[in-house]
Parts: sequence; structure tokens; C-alpha cells
Amino acid sequence: MVQKTNSGKISNLCVDGQALWTDLMETARFGGTAKGGIKRLTLTQEDKQVRDWFMQTCEALGCTVSHDSMGNLFARRAGQDNTLPPISMGSHLDTQPTGGKFDGILGVLGGLSVLRALHKSGYVTRHPIELINWTNEEGSRFSPPMMCSGVFAGVFTEEEVLEKRDRAGIRFGDELDAIGYRGVEKCGEHPLTAYFELHIEQGPILEAEEKTIGIVTGIQGARWYEVTVRGKDAHAGSTPMPLRHDALLASAKMIQTVSAVAVKYGPSAVGTVGLLENRPNSSNVVPGEVFFTIDIRDPDDSVVLKMERELLTQLQQIATDSAVTAEVVQIWDAPAVHFDKECVSMVEQAAAEAQYPARRIVSGPGHDAGYVARVAPTAMIFVPCKVGLSHNEEESITNPQAEAGANVLLEAVLKADQFFNVTE
Amino acid sequence: MVQKTNSGKISNLCVDGQALWTDLMETARFGGTAKGGIKRLTLTQEDKQVRDWFMQTCEALGCTVSHDSMGNLFARRAGQDNTLPPISMGSHLDTQPTGGKFDGILGVLGGLSVLRALHKSGYVTRHPIELINWTNEEGSRFSPPMMCSGVFAGVFTEEEVLEKRDRAGIRFGDELDAIGYRGVEKCGEHPLTAYFELHIEQGPILEAEEKTIGIVTGIQGARWYEVTVRGKDAHAGSTPMPLRHDALLASAKMIQTVSAVAVKYGPSAVGTVGLLENRPNSSNVVPGEVFFTIDIRDPDDSVVLKMERELLTQLQQIATDSAVTAEVVQIWDAPAVHFDKECVSMVEQAAAEAQYPARRIVSGPGHDAGYVARVAPTAMIFVPCKVGLSHNEEESITNPQAEAGANVLLEAVLKADQFFNVTE
Repeated sequence: MVQKTNSGKISNLCVDGQALWTDLMETARFGGTAKGGIKRLTLTQEDKQVRDWFMQTCEALGCTVSHDSMGNLFARRAGQDNTLPPISMGSHLDTQPTGGKFDGILGVLGGLSVLRALHKSGYVTRHPIELINWTNEEGSRFSPPMMCSGVFAGVFTEEEVLEKRDRAGIRFGDELDAIGYRGVEKCGEHPLTAYFELHIEQGPILEAEEKTIGIVTGIQGARWYEVTVRGKDAHAGSTPMPLRHDALLASAKMIQTVSAVAVKYGPSAVGTVGLLENRPNSSNVVPGEVFFTIDIRDPDDSVVLKMERELLTQLQQIATDSAVTAEVVQIWDAPAVHFDKECVSMVEQAAAEAQYPARRIVSGPGHDAGYVARVAPTAMIFVPCKVGLSHNEEESITNPQAEAGANVLLEAVLKADQFFNVTE
Repeated sequence: MVQKTNSGKISNLCVDGQALWTDLMETARFGGTAKGGIKRLTLTQEDKQVRDWFMQTCEALGCTVSHDSMGNLFARRAGQDNTLPPISMGSHLDTQPTGGKFDGILGVLGGLSVLRALHKSGYVTRHPIELINWTNEEGSRFSPPMMCSGVFAGVFTEEEVLEKRDRAGIRFGDELDAIGYRGVEKCGEHPLTAYFELHIEQGPILEAEEKTIGIVTGIQGARWYEVTVRGKDAHAGSTPMPLRHDALLASAKMIQTVSAVAVKYGPSAVGTVGLLENRPNSSNVVPGEVFFTIDIRDPDDSVVLKMERELLTQLQQIATDSAVTAEVVQIWDAPAVHFDKECVSMVEQAAAEAQYPARRIVSGPGHDAGYVARVAPTAMIFVPCKVGLSHNEEESITNPQAEAGANVLLEAVLKADQFFNVTE
């Protein structure tokens, strides 16, 4: 008899770790790089290839597949009562330009291994079980990140996202149509009972403490900005230093300020200038215009706010002192997220029952789960990654780590299946 | 009777200033930009268009046209004794990415107006008179600058120049062939009796002192470097600040150092980082690699050397302190140039005879004349440009200024025609 409380392991089911690893390595071919990583930017041909693979593979496991108006993919396995919103799992299949094989992908393929275990065993859940691939989590090609889980959760509108353009000026909506994944179902009109996301930690803590599982209690707050610094193009040989309006020199000072402000609020705060475009970008021309991005984060929203205030003030001061102008636009504001206590507890118990060394942890990076938490009880499961390296082609985890994460995901999903929508 | 000394105006000839201005505006169409400047990088289709125009226009003025193995163009007007090497004039028709209508172009079209004046008057010189367009003076697309006057003067070899590649990896030799301007005559096997180059000042001095003519006595020394900073790509959200190897942050400190060293040796020294490429250039990735260029100059070669030593030391210190590596390569070393005293004197006298306000001046920027001076007596003539602005689409001079410069060029050429190769 299935227990109605969420204490105690629900089943003896385990995922097939070997098949999971095969899936990871096979899908790494779509956009695979020479260094063993993946360049699979959202809405490119490589993205289409992996989406097609996802849809076919899930259908072969007896799922019904669909996609919404933002290209988010859904693979649903029927339960006893299909009027209930699904217990869901998911993450993202798009990558950074120099991404690894596991960031986001582990959550989707780990969820696939859960579906496979249920399918092969014939186990029937109460709720439907659904695996989700969110469009454009990385925010690399089109800003900001977690864009389509963001629409799902009502943070962004469809209209504004369809109009987003990449640095080459290409429109999001056009690219979604080009790969054939703009669905009829309106994004967001798709209730979920609960949502679990498996992901690599992308930080150094679990590995350092020899933990296998991270019980993720929340996500740190983050803000992104776009800065345009305008000076004046001039001849490098003949323009005296005091008469220059050097946009790159001013930007160099601003880049150091971003770092200094983050260090001031250490050890948890981080600040990064990741993207910079210099114009006209010629060796003997004093640069007249520079565009760059700023990314600041901290688990405490009040710290993020302080960092922002200090940055904005200091950037304008540098601009004035450097005889240039700086236009600063905030393009993303993701407040700190606190996951559902019950779901977090299910993850914690699943890890304990399987005897995986585990610890509670706050996520540094943002995730789709951060937005989904606004519309459904949500939790995340971390596994370690080698020296915490991510957003890097050398990103690396082990087969046993992937398997452990997927097993905790499976058990957490089954606990949730027993816990939610119980009518006494 | 033509006087045999070089005192006193040689002729009553003047250039047609109206036709010169028409030529300037007409050729500005080849690569013309929306802001009124020109983007005509060396060996592009726009460059081919202006070369074709040059050849046709000079032939129509009765010149014999030819080109050498580096694509340098020669338009020769016969003299009394065609066994003598020519008295020559010239400059360059290629531009910066955001160049103006006058940088280099004034020297070529000013020379064209001299040929037109001689042709229309039927005046026969002793020497042949030759107008030259040098390939790739700007050094923007292929580094370093003054590349093909450099081959002409024996500073660079043909082989090394043909192998040069632009930032897209395209080969110089292939592009020269693609526009059809690789000639049979070996570059450099083309003696000149003397060389005069008319050019805009590209600095603020002549305008500020209300001078019409700059009598250029030489060019400041310059050195260029390419720097590759290597750190480690990492996740912007989860990588603690102390564990980063941020190549862009380190480069920002290096950029400030370039400026500081130049300011230290002011007011004459200049230092510029004009080109920078950031990788992987994604908002939420700590940059793992940056490539940038350094340009330092001073009229005193010993100062350039001091600046280089301090820079190299400080760059390595910053790299060490920032947990990155910096590879610094010197790619261009142009020692200070001192022009031929007789030729400079001819320019000075020509300006005085025409009653143009003039003053002696050292050139900030490098010019083809700097290399040609190694193989023939050389001098330059400057005219002012508005607020000294150059390497900028708003670069601006007046019709009277262009005409004055061309008139001084004409008279200097005629004085040289009388002065050199006189056998008593």
C-alpha cells in the first residue's frame, strides 16, 4: 500500500545510470566543440536538433509531447488521475557559447531517466508526470536569462520576448518560427502541481565538502545592466592625452569598480563584466564608444540594492572625470528566491534514505526553477561539478554523481506525487 | 629663363582649387558613410573602385600609369629627361573604419591637381613628375601601418606582407589578387629623386595658431604591441571573486597603465589601446581571454624606449597580481624621422612666397613619407583640420586650405625639379 505521508522511500525504483550517461554523451554531439564542450545557443539549428531528439525520445517512452507559444517543451506521462496538474521536472537544453555538457542538460536528461524508470517498471503515479525543457535559460544570445520560464511565470510578457533581438539584430520571434517551435498553447496556461529541477552546482562547495547531493533552499538575488559609454573617436598619434574622450579607458575604470564593489560586499557577493564591444576597434583610433554588461548577485536582496546604488553613483563619477557619458540601463532584476519548504524537505529525505552525503545550499546562479517557484511549489537538487567549473567547455561530473542526482529526483517526484492534491 | 637655384618662385602656375574639391567629394562616394565619412579599408571593393578611378583619371591627364607587386600605384608625367628618377608626390587612398574624407586622400588628389596644372599649362619639367598611391597606409585591416611604403623602403619584405592576415584570417596576398592590383614590377625597384607628401595635420596646432601651412620637419617615433591576456572562463553567478582568473578585469588595469605611462611622459607622449576583443563575450561568463593592441609615440626615441620598458614591466606585474598570463608582442617599431633639410626648405620658401602663414611642425601620426625618407629626400606639407579631428567621420578642412596645400606642393615640386640632378 502506498503511504499517504511523505516519510519513507516510496518505491524501490532506481534510474538506469548507464542509459543516462549515454543520453548525455549522445546529445552532446548537437553543437559539440573541439574542446569537448557544447556551443548550442538558443533557437539555433543545433538547438532544433536537440529539441527534435527530445520529442522523439519522450514519445518512444510513451509520453505525450507538446510545446507552448515560447517553445517550451512538455513530455507528459499519464497518471491515475489526469485531471490533476502534473508533478514536473525540467531544466534547459540550450548552452553558453563555450558551455559544458551538463549545465541544464543534466536536469532534462535526468528527468528523462526518471520517465524511463517509470515506463519500464509500469509504475502508475497518481498525478501525470511531466518533463519540461525551457527555452533560452542561458540569456547569452537573447537577454535576459530564464527568459521563457519567465514568461511562464508571468515575469515577462510574450510580446516583449518575441521582440527581443540578439547582438546581430535578429528577432527572437523570427528565430522561434525558423526552427518550427512556436506552439499554439499560450505560455503560462499550464498549471503544475510541483516542480523539481536537478542541476550541477556550478560552484566549488559540494566537491570541497565531499557531498553528493545539494539540497537547494533558494537562489541568490541578481541584477543585470547594459552600459553604453560615449566619448569621441580620434587619432591615436596626434591627439594629446588631456584632450581625449576615450570610451575604452573610462570603461576600464568602470570594470574595476564593478569588481571592487563586489569584493567590498564579499565573501558572498559577485560582480562581473562579461560582454564588451569596443568601437570603432582600430589600433590607431582612440575608441569613441563602448558597450558592456554588468552582472551583480548576492543571496541578500538588500545587499544587491546597496551594490547597485554604489555602482550607479561611481559609474557616473568616472564618466564625468573621464570626459565621456555613460548610459546605464537595468535589464534584469531577479529577487532572491526561497523554495517551498515541503519540496525541499522531500529532496532532503530522498537523499537521506538513499544514504547520499548531502547538505543544504543556496544557488549562486539563477535557474528556471527561480521563476517556476512563483507559480508552483518548487525545489532543486544539486550534484557537484569538478572544481566548480561551469560556463566552460571543461565542465565535468561523474556518472555516479549524475545517477545519484537522478535517483533523488525520482524519489522526490514520487514523494510529491503522494503528498499533493490528497483529499481526505 | 628658369633659375638654377631654389630661391624665388619657379612659375606662376596655380592649382584649380575647385576641381580639387570636386575630386575630393566625388571619390568620397567610394565607401562613403551616412555620417559623411569614408569606410574604405585597404584591398576591399571600395578600395578597388577608387584605384580604378585614379588610374583612369591620371591617364586622361596624359600620364603613364603602372603598379608594383604591392599594389602601389604610379602615375608618371614625362619630363625633358626621362632617364632621371621622378620628382614624386603621394599619399594613400585607404581609410580607417570611421575615417574622414581628407586623411591621405588630400595628398593624392592634391598631387593630381598638380599634374592637372602642369598638363593644362603644357609646362615641361626637367624630371618626370610622378604621383603615388601607397597601399595600406592605415594599418587598420592589416597591421602594421604604412605597410607597402615600408616594403618600398626595404623595412618589410614582400613575403612577410603577403602573408599578413586580418582579424578574420584573410590573407593580404589573396586580397591584393582579388582586386587585381598585384603588379609585375618588384616593389622598391623604382628610384625617386625626391618625394613630397601633402597631408592634413590631424592635430590641433595649426588651427589654434591660425597657420595655413605646416612645414613638417619630421615624424615622432612609434611602437605597436599585441597583447593576449589568458585567464579562465567561469560562471559569473557562482564563482567567488577570489577564485577568478578574469582576463577582462586584468586588461582593464593594463589599459589604465598605458594611459598613465603616456601621461607621465607628457605633454608630447601618447599611449592608446584602440582595439580589444573579449572572449567568450557572454554576459554571465567571467572572460577567460582578451586580445588588445597598444600604440605608444613620442618625438624622442629615447622616451619611447623608456615608455616601453615601464609598460612591459607593469603589464607583467598586473598579470601576476590578477592570476592571469599576458603575452606581449611588439609588432611595429618606427623610429623618429628627420626629413631632408633641402626639401623642408623648399616647402618653407614656397609657403613664404605665396604668403601663406606657416610654421615648422613635427608630425604626431606616422606617414608613408616616414619610410620613403629612407630612400629619397623627402618632406611633408600640412594643412590644418577642424579642431584637429581625424580618424573620425567628422574630419573637416576648407576648400581654401586644400588649395593652399596643393599650391605649396606644386611649387615645392618645381623647386625640387630645378635643384636635383643638376650637372654643371
